[in-house]
Amino acid sequence: MSIETMIKEMAMAAKAASRHLRKVERGTKDSALRIMADRLILRGEDIIGENKKDLALAEKSGLTSALIDRLTLDEKTIISMAEGLREIAGLPDPVGEVTGMWKRPNGLMVGRVRIPLGVIGFIYESRPNVTVDAAGLCLKSGNAVILKGGAEAINSNLILEEILKEALRETSLPQEAIQVIPTTDRKAVNTLLELEDYIDIIIPRGGEGLIRFVAEHSRIPVLKHYKGVCHIYVDEFADISMALDVCFNAKVQRPGVCNAMETMLVHEKVAKEFLPLMAERLQKAGVEIRGCSRTLSIVPQAVPAKEADWPAEFLDLILAVMIVSNMDEALDHIEKYGSNHTEAIITRDYERSRRFLAEVDSSVVLVNASTRFNDGYQLGLGAEIGINTSKLHAFGPMGLEELTTTKFIVYGDGQIRS
Amino acid sequence: MSIETMIKEMAMAAKAASRHLRKVERGTKDSALRIMADRLILRGEDIIGENKKDLALAEKSGLTSALIDRLTLDEKTIISMAEGLREIAGLPDPVGEVTGMWKRPNGLMVGRVRIPLGVIGFIYESRPNVTVDAAGLCLKSGNAVILKGGAEAINSNLILEEILKEALRETSLPQEAIQVIPTTDRKAVNTLLELEDYIDIIIPRGGEGLIRFVAEHSRIPVLKHYKGVCHIYVDEFADISMALDVCFNAKVQRPGVCNAMETMLVHEKVAKEFLPLMAERLQKAGVEIRGCSRTLSIVPQAVPAKEADWPAEFLDLILAVMIVSNMDEALDHIEKYGSNHTEAIITRDYERSRRFLAEVDSSVVLVNASTRFNDGYQLGLGAEIGINTSKLHAFGPMGLEELTTTKFIVYGDGQIRS
Repeated sequence: MSIETMIKEMAMAAKAASRHLRKVERGTKDSALRIMADRLILRGEDIIGENKKDLALAEKSGLTSALIDRLTLDEKTIISMAEGLREIAGLPDPVGEVTGMWKRPNGLMVGRVRIPLGVIGFIYESRPNVTVDAAGLCLKSGNAVILKGGAEAINSNLILEEILKEALRETSLPQEAIQVIPTTDRKAVNTLLELEDYIDIIIPRGGEGLIRFVAEHSRIPVLKHYKGVCHIYVDEFADISMALDVCFNAKVQRPGVCNAMETMLVHEKVAKEFLPLMAERLQKAGVEIRGCSRTLSIVPQAVPAKEADWPAEFLDLILAVMIVSNMDEALDHIEKYGSNHTEAIITRDYERSRRFLAEVDSSVVLVNASTRFNDGYQLGLGAEIGINTSKLHAFGPMGLEELTTTKFIVYGDGQIRS
Repeated sequence: MSIETMIKEMAMAAKAASRHLRKVERGTKDSALRIMADRLILRGEDIIGENKKDLALAEKSGLTSALIDRLTLDEKTIISMAEGLREIAGLPDPVGEVTGMWKRPNGLMVGRVRIPLGVIGFIYESRPNVTVDAAGLCLKSGNAVILKGGAEAINSNLILEEILKEALRETSLPQEAIQVIPTTDRKAVNTLLELEDYIDIIIPRGGEGLIRFVAEHSRIPVLKHYKGVCHIYVDEFADISMALDVCFNAKVQRPGVCNAMETMLVHEKVAKEFLPLMAERLQKAGVEIRGCSRTLSIVPQAVPAKEADWPAEFLDLILAVMIVSNMDEALDHIEKYGSNHTEAIITRDYERSRRFLAEVDSSVVLVNASTRFNDGYQLGLGAEIGINTSKLHAFGPMGLEELTTTKFIVYGDGQIRS
C-alpha cells in the first residue's frame, strides 16, 4: 500500500471513529483515560525498551545531548505522563455543555451546544510524552486524533499508541480514535495536510520551520503560532523591585520557551535607576543584553542591538533592551515587532494599566505579572494542547474547550418561515 | 501602480485602520452607521445613476433578467439598506465584553475580553446591497473590511463606498476602515488571498465555484460553506399535518437559498399516508420530485432519482425523496450526503428528537421547524454576514459576535512563575 493510500485510510477511519466519539458519555472517556494511565505504569519496561531503540539511533545519527535528553523516557517521565492523563480525566467534559438558550418571538427555542471538532491532525517534534498528552486531550474533548511525531521518536510513539489503544479496547471505544502515523516518510505529512474532507483541524507544534511548512502546505485550517516575541514594558510608574523580579523571571526561569521575554522596553524616566540593577542580575544569570544606543550609555556591558534583534525569538539567555520616551513608543514597538503572543506592563498607574490591556493586540496581555503565565494550565484552562496567535477560533492557549465548537439546536412546534 | 501593489497598499492601510478601530467606543460607531443611513437616502439619485451604468453594461453583455433584477437598486432597496444600517446601530457592541473572569490560586485575576478580528476580506458576487450590509457589520464589530464585489456591480459598489466614507469622515473614523477594490481584474483577488500578514480572515459569499476558488487559493483562514444540502427527516411518529406544512415551507418558500430543503427522508411507516398528500401540494407549486424506487411506487408522478441527486444542492423547485426503513438509515444518509449545514426532524417522539439533536453533525439542527430558520436574524443573532460549515471559529450563521475573538487579560500584583 502506498503512503498516500495508508494516510487516507487512516483519515477515513478517524472520521468514522469521530462519529462514534461524539456520542460517548464522560464516564466512558474518563475510564479510558484512567486505564491508559494504569497501563503506562504497568508497561513501563516495554516503553523504556522501545525508547532505547530510538536513543540508540539518535546517538548514531549524532543528535545533540539536549535533544537526546528530550527524547529520553524513564520511570519518572512515565509516571508524569500517567498523572497527566488522570488530571485530564478529572477535568469537566466540555462536550454537551449548552452555552446559551433563548426564545424567539415565534416560540422557537434556540440554543448552542458544545460539540467536538471532529478529527484533529497533530504534527509535532517534541518529546514523546506529548503523544500521550495530545491523545488524552483529544479523547476527552470527543475528537479522533492522528499523531505525527518526530522521526527520532517513532519507536517510542508506536509503543505508546499500542498501550493507549489497549484502554480504548477495554472501554469499547473505537481503536481509530487514536492513531500514530507509523512511518517517518515526509510524504505522510504532505498527504495528511490535503485531506480536508476527513480532517477538521491541524495543530502543529515545534520549531518555526515545521510550523511554516505545515501552514504553507495545508488545505485544512491550522491553529498555530510561529514564534513568541514577548515584551515587558517597564513603565515610568513601575514598582522597581517588582519590575526586577518579574522581568528576571520572564527571561531566566525557562528561556527556551515561547512565553519567555525576548525584549524589554524601559521608560526613560526609570531607565537610570532600573537598568543597572536589572543588568547586574541578568548578567549573573548569564544573560547577554543587546541594547539600543541609549541603553548602551547606561549599561556598559551591553552589546549594540541590531535591527534583526527586535523581531527575534532568541529562545536563549539573550535579551533585547530598548529605552522609550513614552508609552506610545512602547505600544508602537510592540505593534511593529511583536508576535501577538504575550505582552506585559509593569506599572502602578491605573490609567496606563487600562490602556495597555485595551490596546495591545496579543493573545495574553498582563499587568504586573510574568509573561511566563501564558500557559493553559497557569491561566486555569486545566491543560493545553498549544497556543494559537491567529485570531481565528481560539486566540491564545488552547485547552479542552478550544478543542470543541458549538452547533445550534432548535426546538420548534411546527414553525415555518413567512 | 500594479494591481498587486495597489491591493497590498489597501491591505496595509486596512491594518493601520484596524489598530485605530479597536479603540473606538460604541457611540462613535453607531453615529457613523446612522449617518451612513441618512446619506444613502440623501444621495439616492446618485446611487441610482451609477447603478444604471452597471445595468446598461449588464444588458449589453446579456445577463439574465434574474441577475439584472438582483443588480438593480431602486428607492425601495436603498431605504432597506439604510434600515439595515440603523438596525446594526441598535445591536449591542460585542467588543469589550468580558466573557468570563476568574481568580487563580496565586491571586492572578484572569479574564477573557472580546476584541475585533482585525481586517476582514469579503469576496462576494451578490447584490450591491451586500456591500452596505457587510461594511456595517464589520464597522460595528470594530473590524476594517476590504470588499471585492462582482464585476457587474462595480459602479454601484464604488458610489456606495464613497457615501459610506463620508460618514467615516464626519465621525473622524479612518477612511481605510471600509475599502472597495476599484478594479474588476481577477488578479486583485489572487493578491488579496496571499496577504496573510495584513488580513485576518476571508469570507466569500456566492456560488460554489467562487467559494472553491477562494478556499483553494487563500493562505488566510476562510469562513465559508460550499453548499447547503439540507434534509428533513419525517419520522414514523411525525404529526403529518405539521410535516406537510414544514416540508412545504422548507422547499417552496424560497428555493434558491442555501437553507432550503433539498432532500426529504420519510419513514416507511408514514410514507403511504404522507407522501401522496405531500406530492400533491408540491406539484401544485411546480416542484419536481426525484424519488428512490420505493417512492416511485407511491408517487407515480415522481421521476427516478439518480445517485447524483442525493448530494445535490438544486437551489430550485426540485426535491429528492427517499423512504427509509428506520431512523438509523436516515442518520446514515445525512452523514453520507449532507453538507453539515441544516437538518430537521419532524416527530412527536421525545427520544427520537433528543437523538436527532445529539447525533446530527450540522451547524443548525431543528426539531419540528423549517430548515429556513438557519439565518442569523431568524435565530436571534441580530444580523448575519454569512454561514460557516467548517467547524472552526463559528459553526453556523455568523453575526456580530462571530466577527470577534477573545484575548486573555491578566491582572497581577507582581506574580512570577516558579
